Amino acid sequence: MLLEALGALGETIELDAEESRYVARVCRARLHATLSATDGRGGLARLRIVTLGARVRAVFEHLEERPRAREAMLWCGAPEGTRADWMVEKLAELGVSALQPLQCARGTWNATPARLERWSRLAGAALKQSRQAWRMRILEPAGIEAVLAGATGRASKWIADPEGPRPGREADLEHSIGVIGPSGGFDPAETRLFEASGFRAMSLASSRLRTETAAIAWACWWGAAGS
Amino acid sequence: MLLEALGALGETIELDAEESRYVARVCRARLHATLSATDGRGGLARLRIVTLGARVRAVFEHLEERPRAREAMLWCGAPEGTRADWMVEKLAELGVSALQPLQCARGTWNATPARLERWSRLAGAALKQSRQAWRMRILEPAGIEAVLAGATGRASKWIADPEGPRPGREADLEHSIGVIGPSGGFDPAETRLFEASGFRAMSLASSRLRTETAAIAWACWWGAAGS
Repeated sequence: MLLEALGALGETIELDAEESRYVARVCRARLHATLSATDGRGGLARLRIVTLGARVRAVFEHLEERPRAREAMLWCGAPEGTRADWMVEKLAELGVSALQPLQCARGTWNATPARLERWSRLAGAALKQSRQAWRMRILEPAGIEAVLAGATGRASKWIADPEGPRPGREADLEHSIGVIGPSGGFDPAETRLFEASGFRAMSLASSRLRTETAAIAWACWWGAAGS
Repeated sequence: MLLEALGALGETIELDAEESRYVARVCRARLHATLSATDGRGGLARLRIVTLGARVRAVFEHLEERPRAREAMLWCGAPEGTRADWMVEKLAELGVSALQPLQCARGTWNATPARLERWSRLAGAALKQSRQAWRMRILEPAGIEAVLAGATGRASKWIADPEGPRPGREADLEHSIGVIGPSGGFDPAETRLFEASGFRAMSLASSRLRTETAAIAWACWWGAAGS
C-alpha cells in the first residue's frame, strides 16, 4: 500500500475508498490482519486492521526506514507511441531511482501533465507490486545540455551503443546513470556531448534494440551487475 | 523483410501486397534501391528493386547464412492477462531462440490458435525491427514433466528465484535454458522437479518481478553475460 505519509507508531488511519475496497474486497483481509505500507521514500510500515467496511481503519504497529542501497538514473530519449507506459512500469519494477526524459534532435517526448500523472501512477503501482520502499521519480523532460549541467556528483556513466563493448561486472555502481537514445537515435553532436562528459559506451545485446527495450536492458544489467 | 523462403542468386520475386506497400509507401524506396530480407532461420539476403508499383519486384543479389552464435530457450509460466504480447515482442527482440510456455499448477496459458498466430507475427515483426537472422520459435504450451523429458543435450540451466544468488558472468552460455514461474509462482513440487534436473537458482533483481519482467530480465542477463 502506498501512503503519502506514514503515521506515528500507535496512530490510527482511515484508508481512502479505493484502498479500502482493495483491502476488503480484493485481498479479503480480515479484522486484525496486518497490512504493509510504504511512502515510496524509504519508509516502511506494518499496520493492523481495526475496522473493516467501506472505509478500513488500521493502526501503525511497526515502522522502519530502508536506506537505498544503490541509485540508478535513467536518461532516456522518447520511445515510439505509447511504449513509454510499460517502460515506466518496468523501470519502476526493476528499482530504477529516477527517469529523466531527454528531449533530443531526433525524438521528443510529448509529456503532457495527464501523461506525467499516469506515469507516476504506474510507478506507484509497480512499487506496490514489487514490494519496494522507493518510488521511481519521473522528472520533467529536458534538453541534454540542461540535464548534463544539472548532474553533479560522482556517478558511473553509461551510454547505450550497439557498437560499444559489452560491459563487465562493475564494482562501483552506487550511483549510476544510463543514457538511452530516442527511437531515431542520437545525432552525432549529441553523442559527442555525452562522450565529453565521461559517458562510456556499452552494448546491451547482440541485436538492435528499441528505445524502451534498451532502457529495460540497461536497468536489468544495472540490477544484476556489481552486486 | 521476412520471407518464408529466400530465392537463388539472380532470381526475381514479387513481394506480397503488404510488403509492397511498406517498401513503396512507408520506406519510399526507389527503383534499384536495395532491400534486406531474412527467412528467420539464419538466411540473409540483399535484393535490388527492379519494379515498383502495387506489387514490387526485386532480384536476389547477395545471399549468406548467419550461424547462430548462442541459443537460449525460455521456459515460462503464464504472465497475467495480455502481458504475454509484449513479453513475446521483447524476448524476440533480445534474441531468445525459443519460448516454451509452461502449464503450471498455479498458472495456465490460454494459448488459442489465434494467440499463437499473433505471437508468431509479433516475433516476426521484432525480428525485422532488430535486424536479426533468427526468428524466435514459439512452442505449444506443455506441462513441466513433458518439457523436462524432451530437453536432451547439454545446456546451462537456470531457474529464476528471488531468494537465489546473483549469477556471475558465465563462460558457458552456448546453450542456455531459463525457467520463469507463472504469476502465481511455482508450487514446491514443481520447484523440486527443476532442482532435480540440475537447474540452478538465480536472482535477477533486488525487487520482486512480475513473470514477464523476470523473463525479459533473464534474456537481458543472457544477452550481456558470457560474451
